[in-house]
Amino acid sequence: MKPKSGFVDEGNMALLTDLYQLTMDASYHHHSRNELSTFDYFIRKLPENRSYFVVSGLEQVLHYLGNLHFDEGSISYLRSRNLFSEEFLGYLGSFRFTGGVRAMPEGTVAFPGEPIISITAPRSEAQLVETYLLNVMNFQTMVASKASRIVDAANSKKVVDFALRRAHSQTAGMQAARAAYIAGVAGTSNVLAGKEFNIPVFGTMAHAYVMSFDSEVDSFRAYSGTFGDSSVFLIDTYDTLQGAKNAIAVAKEMEKVGKRLKGVRLDSGDLCGLSREVRMMLDGSGLGYVIIVASNDLNEYKISELEKNGACIDMYAVGTEMGTSKDAPALSGVYKLVEDTDSGGNVVPRMKLSEGKSTLPGKKQVCRVFDSEGKSLRDVIATAGEPCEGQPLLEAYMENGNLVKELPELEEVRSRKELQLRSFSRGCTRMESPESYEVGISGKLSSLRQQVAEKMGGKGWV
Amino acid sequence: MKPKSGFVDEGNMALLTDLYQLTMDASYHHHSRNELSTFDYFIRKLPENRSYFVVSGLEQVLHYLGNLHFDEGSISYLRSRNLFSEEFLGYLGSFRFTGGVRAMPEGTVAFPGEPIISITAPRSEAQLVETYLLNVMNFQTMVASKASRIVDAANSKKVVDFALRRAHSQTAGMQAARAAYIAGVAGTSNVLAGKEFNIPVFGTMAHAYVMSFDSEVDSFRAYSGTFGDSSVFLIDTYDTLQGAKNAIAVAKEMEKVGKRLKGVRLDSGDLCGLSREVRMMLDGSGLGYVIIVASNDLNEYKISELEKNGACIDMYAVGTEMGTSKDAPALSGVYKLVEDTDSGGNVVPRMKLSEGKSTLPGKKQVCRVFDSEGKSLRDVIATAGEPCEGQPLLEAYMENGNLVKELPELEEVRSRKELQLRSFSRGCTRMESPESYEVGISGKLSSLRQQVAEKMGGKGWV
Repeated sequence: MKPKSGFVDEGNMALLTDLYQLTMDASYHHHSRNELSTFDYFIRKLPENRSYFVVSGLEQVLHYLGNLHFDEGSISYLRSRNLFSEEFLGYLGSFRFTGGVRAMPEGTVAFPGEPIISITAPRSEAQLVETYLLNVMNFQTMVASKASRIVDAANSKKVVDFALRRAHSQTAGMQAARAAYIAGVAGTSNVLAGKEFNIPVFGTMAHAYVMSFDSEVDSFRAYSGTFGDSSVFLIDTYDTLQGAKNAIAVAKEMEKVGKRLKGVRLDSGDLCGLSREVRMMLDGSGLGYVIIVASNDLNEYKISELEKNGACIDMYAVGTEMGTSKDAPALSGVYKLVEDTDSGGNVVPRMKLSEGKSTLPGKKQVCRVFDSEGKSLRDVIATAGEPCEGQPLLEAYMENGNLVKELPELEEVRSRKELQLRSFSRGCTRMESPESYEVGISGKLSSLRQQVAEKMGGKGWV
Repeated sequence: MKPKSGFVDEGNMALLTDLYQLTMDASYHHHSRNELSTFDYFIRKLPENRSYFVVSGLEQVLHYLGNLHFDEGSISYLRSRNLFSEEFLGYLGSFRFTGGVRAMPEGTVAFPGEPIISITAPRSEAQLVETYLLNVMNFQTMVASKASRIVDAANSKKVVDFALRRAHSQTAGMQAARAAYIAGVAGTSNVLAGKEFNIPVFGTMAHAYVMSFDSEVDSFRAYSGTFGDSSVFLIDTYDTLQGAKNAIAVAKEMEKVGKRLKGVRLDSGDLCGLSREVRMMLDGSGLGYVIIVASNDLNEYKISELEKNGACIDMYAVGTEMGTSKDAPALSGVYKLVEDTDSGGNVVPRMKLSEGKSTLPGKKQVCRVFDSEGKSLRDVIATAGEPCEGQPLLEAYMENGNLVKELPELEEVRSRKELQLRSFSRGCTRMESPESYEVGISGKLSSLRQQVAEKMGGKGWV
């Protein structure tokens, strides 16, 4: 057998869905029930240690919706399951997404219960895309939300993504780098993410490099011989303070040939104490320009502690904790039917009433209300039609299956996130014991919910 | 801007690495230091709540090594960084993996510290592949190890992977389905994983399907009208016991036309109590053949509890907890230099001595020692050359960059895992408070370690 990559590509991504999406579609098709319906993507609740979400992943969802089709191999595979009629397989052969998409732009700061994406499409299309949408949005939004806390904790020092080796698969490494960049990290070690998403890439040397030379100082000389001003020496392979002395010696040699060492990296031990000592040693040798990079299982709590204790660290490299959102590695993002067409052809709002799993009926808008100084005061979830008393957060991205809005470059998304986050009171976004931000429901939506609930009687859904 | 997929493909996977792998390689190249070296992949320690690992991901690593090359777009991107010489870029243009790979077959039950993959190649090749190898092996081995516990807890009831919507990206969903199948799950909801890896696919209907009809009983009739004997009805949309009555009514209608309902699914509430009640109702109606499927944030602890309390569940669908290994979403898998060539051209064993991060020097073999009844007694990590006192676990997969072993079908990998796991005492593999399995070091490896340590003197590495 030839080894397989396990990759997804544009030809086969239509099958990257749960089987039940296809069986439900087949049944809708069989019973000619392909009327328009609307589904909302929203996140039920914040993980314990989060106070907001940073929306991320919409671009990948739009790529999917715009390119969705079943290639011949996919159809043949489905045929071989002996589950689907030839008529349905024929329908899949010409399947395209023809619906509309309203969504919060990426980089938006969002809260539990708020619709982040709303899709209106013939039932079979809106249903089929659920799994892929959840996969992409849940993951990227989770990482962006975690990364935002880490960037915040770093007090304007740079943060760099080093997560690729512990990310959950190759694509996770790509999307984590992207989401973290949206959240404000300065760049990534992941070269392909650098190329594909135009994100700055960072990186220098590993312990194996230092070890491959007869002495540490030889390894530093060799590296600076290749990379000159771009060199960052890893100084903890043997002994950090001796490593700092070796780095200083080589930096002084570099100065003689007109080069400047860029930085040194600490990867073990007491990062706070060591960074202060190394800073003093560098400054004492006239090397105030050499930056100190730190890594070693960092997260927002450790970084915050380092900053509080006066660590002399200019750049934090963060891997596992950020790229896997280790303390909360899954979001409760769901995609629920909110509007439908009944058997009489009438558009009807739908909702679920069950405790802890209730939903809000109908097409909606989220309005963010600001004070006179531009501070975010509260969000109001409203019906889609009513006048919005603040800034509407949901925008039209697709109509009839076509993109109707130019997608922003990642830099713009990143700026949006930064500006938005600053518009919230510090109390709402701080790392520990944040105040909760007010998310209300408009009078009109509240009445609609009431009406629908009454119509439902004892049923959990309507 | 056109939306991007963020996918990795065979053309660009060479860049899916940390920048420092390329800068180190450039420096090795610049200084003509491309001698043979050997790196071992091993996992430092078990997560708190694990007692063994299930090796998974080797096929994807071999796919990578066999197809690794830098396409023109990749070279142009690297050129644009202004970091690399034209000479080095030329070298990358003809870069192929030409080394050797020894590894434990997928499905092997492994323990901390044991080399799982060992790569011997010119330094720049062995170094470059680190990140990708870690990414793939850490993730898949983590999921397979978690899934094995879940399968074990289910007491021979079937377990199905439902993780795609919470997996960390599309490819994570693919590889999680594969790893879970190796560990013994019966199949997946992920259609593309079914197609690409030849894994059985499962799935039926969501609440949205039931809701899209005027009544639950209508939705069941419609579904069975399309899928007949393959139908599984989701019965908790409104009220589980009423849902069971509706399912029974439709199952009886199906019997009249010679069809048999396959199953019902519970997705909320007290799964133990409800499954027992529903079982009684089904049996009381002569529907003993209808199976009960359960889902709802399940993991090994919940399943074990359900089994202990006599739940009547025939199939467990498990998502987030398995596909993200939620309680331990990262493994401490590392890839370390163990043998090298010094400046005099001599092959020298290398090791690291630092506390908690020490490594074992030289090329190695792992020998599993069995008792006369085939029970695994202990593993011994030995030098590669010495006679192995048990079954050698590391096998040659690649030589000179070519595959030298036929890769098994996934079914074979799955059987290997099952057989191996059974060879351990129950105490070593049980879910809670497992006994630790003995992993020793051969006398020869122990002496080598001693020698190398003495040569190192005060240094953390040699």
